[in-house]
Amino acid sequence: MAEENGKKWVLMVTAQTPTNIAVIKYWGKRDENLILPINDSISVTLDPSHLCTTTSVAVSPDFTEDRMWLNGKEMSLLGGRYQNCLRELRARASEVEDDEKGIKITKKDWEKLHVHIASYNNFPTAAGLASSAAGFACLVFSLAKLMNVKEDQSKLSAIARQGSGSACRSLYGGFVKWIMGKEENGSDSVAVQLADEKHWDDLVIIIAVVSSRQKETSSTSGMRETVETSMLIQHRAKEVVPKRIVQMEEAIKNRDFPSFARLSCADSNQFHAVCLDTSPPIFYMNDTSHRIISCVEKWNRFEGTPQVAYTFDAGPNAVLIAHNRKTAASLLHRLLFHFPPSSDADLNSYVIGDKTILQDAGIQNMKDVQALAPPPEIKDNIPTQKGQGDVSYFICTRPGRGPVLLTDNTQALLDPKTGLPK
Amino acid sequence: MAEENGKKWVLMVTAQTPTNIAVIKYWGKRDENLILPINDSISVTLDPSHLCTTTSVAVSPDFTEDRMWLNGKEMSLLGGRYQNCLRELRARASEVEDDEKGIKITKKDWEKLHVHIASYNNFPTAAGLASSAAGFACLVFSLAKLMNVKEDQSKLSAIARQGSGSACRSLYGGFVKWIMGKEENGSDSVAVQLADEKHWDDLVIIIAVVSSRQKETSSTSGMRETVETSMLIQHRAKEVVPKRIVQMEEAIKNRDFPSFARLSCADSNQFHAVCLDTSPPIFYMNDTSHRIISCVEKWNRFEGTPQVAYTFDAGPNAVLIAHNRKTAASLLHRLLFHFPPSSDADLNSYVIGDKTILQDAGIQNMKDVQALAPPPEIKDNIPTQKGQGDVSYFICTRPGRGPVLLTDNTQALLDPKTGLPK
Repeated sequence: MAEENGKKWVLMVTAQTPTNIAVIKYWGKRDENLILPINDSISVTLDPSHLCTTTSVAVSPDFTEDRMWLNGKEMSLLGGRYQNCLRELRARASEVEDDEKGIKITKKDWEKLHVHIASYNNFPTAAGLASSAAGFACLVFSLAKLMNVKEDQSKLSAIARQGSGSACRSLYGGFVKWIMGKEENGSDSVAVQLADEKHWDDLVIIIAVVSSRQKETSSTSGMRETVETSMLIQHRAKEVVPKRIVQMEEAIKNRDFPSFARLSCADSNQFHAVCLDTSPPIFYMNDTSHRIISCVEKWNRFEGTPQVAYTFDAGPNAVLIAHNRKTAASLLHRLLFHFPPSSDADLNSYVIGDKTILQDAGIQNMKDVQALAPPPEIKDNIPTQKGQGDVSYFICTRPGRGPVLLTDNTQALLDPKTGLPK
Repeated sequence: MAEENGKKWVLMVTAQTPTNIAVIKYWGKRDENLILPINDSISVTLDPSHLCTTTSVAVSPDFTEDRMWLNGKEMSLLGGRYQNCLRELRARASEVEDDEKGIKITKKDWEKLHVHIASYNNFPTAAGLASSAAGFACLVFSLAKLMNVKEDQSKLSAIARQGSGSACRSLYGGFVKWIMGKEENGSDSVAVQLADEKHWDDLVIIIAVVSSRQKETSSTSGMRETVETSMLIQHRAKEVVPKRIVQMEEAIKNRDFPSFARLSCADSNQFHAVCLDTSPPIFYMNDTSHRIISCVEKWNRFEGTPQVAYTFDAGPNAVLIAHNRKTAASLLHRLLFHFPPSSDADLNSYVIGDKTILQDAGIQNMKDVQALAPPPEIKDNIPTQKGQGDVSYFICTRPGRGPVLLTDNTQALLDPKTGLPK
């Protein structure tokens, strides 16, 4: 070990990992500690350019304890979920040599060496955008690189799963299935890639970050209460989801958007239905979420075939998946018509991410928003009340790639000399 | 027949019928025409002093067609549901004699005689308070009296059921079960009384009429869509409800409020869950409904045992059933604290029905409302945002009696000479 030759060193790895959105939902565990689900789930990985976690991990003989900083603020690593991930990774660590720096770490050294972890989300942590999924996936991916863990990505996913269930799906890009597995030790509860992000690259995703005044039930306690009290959840897990998984895999394979959309919407609604069937009931969607669903359903019905799929996780935010750039522009038109920004907002911070969708919709400024015509499907109806201020902002994005190492040291979050946050 | 002896006459009957609220819900038909449900349901009949329909029905040889007026406005009787009820009643009509007036109607005469019907709800029809249940029950009950139909109340309930499913439950006071039945012709799909209103007479009911800007799905089309598209409704109807029916009957028999409350709340939530599992999803509850549920759930949890049950029909209105007068006063305190009237409202029209509950709560005027202290269960939390204007008004009532004939002619809605609305 380097201490022995008296030269101080810090070894660091930085990685970027995407978040993901389930289109067949994970809700309910059969093992709380190992985080083993009661059904398979399928997700779409979101483009890390718009939503991702960046994590730097470092090791040094000078570190006296494992430490972690999230968005610049130190956090405890004592929680069981962090400890489970760290233990699993240390058990699989291999020898590391860096002749240039004069570093040699043996497999046994990893038991005593401490790590520093710094993590940063490029989106608001509190917005309910699956930050823990990206976070744990990035922690496991980067530590595995640092520790020279020689397991394949699927094995790593089983470790990330023990941090946060949906994190296992963030280890791949594109379309990902989390297989629930059968083993008691969870070894076969892993994520696999169904197709990469290039397989179906005309999909466009618009996320409506919905304003909420309600404190939400955490998904951990929410799904526990559902499993304990809902009379419908077992029927969903055993009878409904297995068929939908087969159908969704087929829809993704064939780029069959109508089937993809119908399954996504139905499964999102059923997940919220079992939340409502919980005692006490759990409400994640609010009136704004309902209005977004009504807007999409009305439009899809008007067109005769689905233009857009919607899905909602454990919060009021809508994730809207448009068939292609053209329908995405039409969708954004509708969203801005129904949910214009507050009068003091500026369009540039109201629609973020891939702004070319805004250009495609022919909307350049607030004046254009105010001049938006009602979409044809509501023309005959009484003008709907506008939900000004009901949406905080929109994020335009698309399906994206899986985790990557960042070799550009300027992107590292830890100082390469001290191993402390920059 | 009276025409023959040249003397003109009008024979009239007036009746009053309550509305009812299901505590184990009816949702889904197995026969659309006969209105046969996919599961049993149980309801509480509401005191007709506060919520009822009054109907006058008259027959005269001078009437040239069947006519009906609802709340003073003439309505068509051509709909299949009215026609089914009229046909079933005519087929069971018996001889009527009134020597004083010189009236003699034979069984056969009823085939040719026409009726006039005038109906009036003592509550807003549009408020989503099961006006069609009370309406059809009253129509069938009063016509059966007029036509001297000799069937028992249960047989009449099977006729009312063909007008509006839940109407069959309004033919009894107290606690009522609608047995789904097995026969294809619906003859055994009838209501029976589980216990009369005196059996459990300390219950108090407060209805929150919730303001809504959404147009709601009618329950007829809503339940059809649920049966056609929900993957959970059959499991609910076949596996969940039968057990709950047994438990609810037991809870009512034993006046076991905690069980009554738990079952009512769980079944209301499950009904709304299967609505959400419908494609496209149906939302009847809104953010105000959710906040009322949270308020009750928090209070019940704080007390360690249920104080109040809630149940919601096909709309956002909350029906809250309090264990007794004392808990009802505490409930009203909480409701007025969380949902004060708009500043321009007056308390007298904001809390209607049995105003003694307001007195019990020690609230006499708007100043008292403004001075209400937060309930203990929220004391440690951040003060909740108040839902001023989110509730239109509250109705205080209780379980009540079944249909009655009104013999006081001043309450009749038709002129005894002309048979036209007064």
